[in-house]
Amino acid sequence: MDDRALYDITYGLYIITAICDDYMNGQIANTVFQVTSDPKTITVCINKQNLTHEMIEKSKRFGVCILTQDAPMDMIGLFGFKSGREINKFEGVAYITAQEGTPVITDYCKGYIECDLKQSVDVGTHTMFIGDVVDAQVFKKDKPLTYAYYHQVKKGTAPKTAPTYRQESLMDSSENEVPKYRCPICGYVYDPEVGDENAGVISETQFADLPEDWTCPLCRAPKSSFTNE
Amino acid sequence: MDDRALYDITYGLYIITAICDDYMNGQIANTVFQVTSDPKTITVCINKQNLTHEMIEKSKRFGVCILTQDAPMDMIGLFGFKSGREINKFEGVAYITAQEGTPVITDYCKGYIECDLKQSVDVGTHTMFIGDVVDAQVFKKDKPLTYAYYHQVKKGTAPKTAPTYRQESLMDSSENEVPKYRCPICGYVYDPEVGDENAGVISETQFADLPEDWTCPLCRAPKSSFTNE
Repeated sequence: MDDRALYDITYGLYIITAICDDYMNGQIANTVFQVTSDPKTITVCINKQNLTHEMIEKSKRFGVCILTQDAPMDMIGLFGFKSGREINKFEGVAYITAQEGTPVITDYCKGYIECDLKQSVDVGTHTMFIGDVVDAQVFKKDKPLTYAYYHQVKKGTAPKTAPTYRQESLMDSSENEVPKYRCPICGYVYDPEVGDENAGVISETQFADLPEDWTCPLCRAPKSSFTNE
Repeated sequence: MDDRALYDITYGLYIITAICDDYMNGQIANTVFQVTSDPKTITVCINKQNLTHEMIEKSKRFGVCILTQDAPMDMIGLFGFKSGREINKFEGVAYITAQEGTPVITDYCKGYIECDLKQSVDVGTHTMFIGDVVDAQVFKKDKPLTYAYYHQVKKGTAPKTAPTYRQESLMDSSENEVPKYRCPICGYVYDPEVGDENAGVISETQFADLPEDWTCPLCRAPKSSFTNE
């Protein structure tokens, strides 16, 4: 069996949002699809450990924010590798409120879909939430961010709580000439060819030449914590 | 509410296969995702009217064949717009048998995933089948066919039984200068700019100049049945 066939499934990348007792939260998810066209229903698969899971269960409602291809890594890091139990992810993030009150992000989002929870399916480590579409808007025509683009171009990774989490050894099977520096927290691998545009690091900058106060673009772990493999 | 936000969800394109009482069948689906990573489970959403639905329910097993970007339209037409109740779709199609006996297609497929049915979720017009991955193989490194590529580049459509079926009026909101010829059976719109490579029709060929024996590349409806809008 070659598990890598599972990596050839195509996904987008979304921020799933919820509001519960006036607290707003959101998390990255790639497992979103339309279930039926009449009525219009959407499903999303969320890890039971996540705060967003708890909030959707309680509030019976969720939002799907469709990320654009130019969504910066620190935004994905904030919503994908931090917990809303520790920080308020919506602080400093531009959002509006959808029809039924779900906060939906406006920056780097093509549009949103708001759903009322219709059905919850227990699938072990995760729950598949199925919702009736109650509101939807398109903000812009930009290309949606795909999971393939996030991995191949942005060099992004998946947290251990993702349905599509991949073991590290399987992720990079080629190009081993250059030593790689990996974030021990989120698994992000610094790629000298890409650099880190948001931190002002141009391409072809070697890891050793990164400023000492440089931090992981995904989870903000310090440079000094990175391990060489 | 702007339903077009739902069109910005990213999907791949797959052929879902099954075997039941020695009869093999398959159908196109775009709604496939990984549900959990431990154990590895996959879900696919299938219309209750489809023969493949009946066969998965009975045989408790299904295959996911991951199409490559160069998959020809007549292959998508065969598996997406014909019923296995009327024709044997596997006649003349190259396939192998996965570990547990599911036929999986080798031409224009990147690889396959074979699943044992674990859970069926009734979602109205469709069922979401959730399966344990029991076999998987990668055949080639070609790019997977995405639903966006199928729509935008190949000018493909979705049948009424798809979870993501779109009403015709919503599908083409621009470029109305040239009269369009649409297939009354499957909704395919002939695009003179694209032509029909598989039928030897070069780009810039107007509909009127197509040979009289030309047929819809998706469902094989005759040219004479096309309507002008």
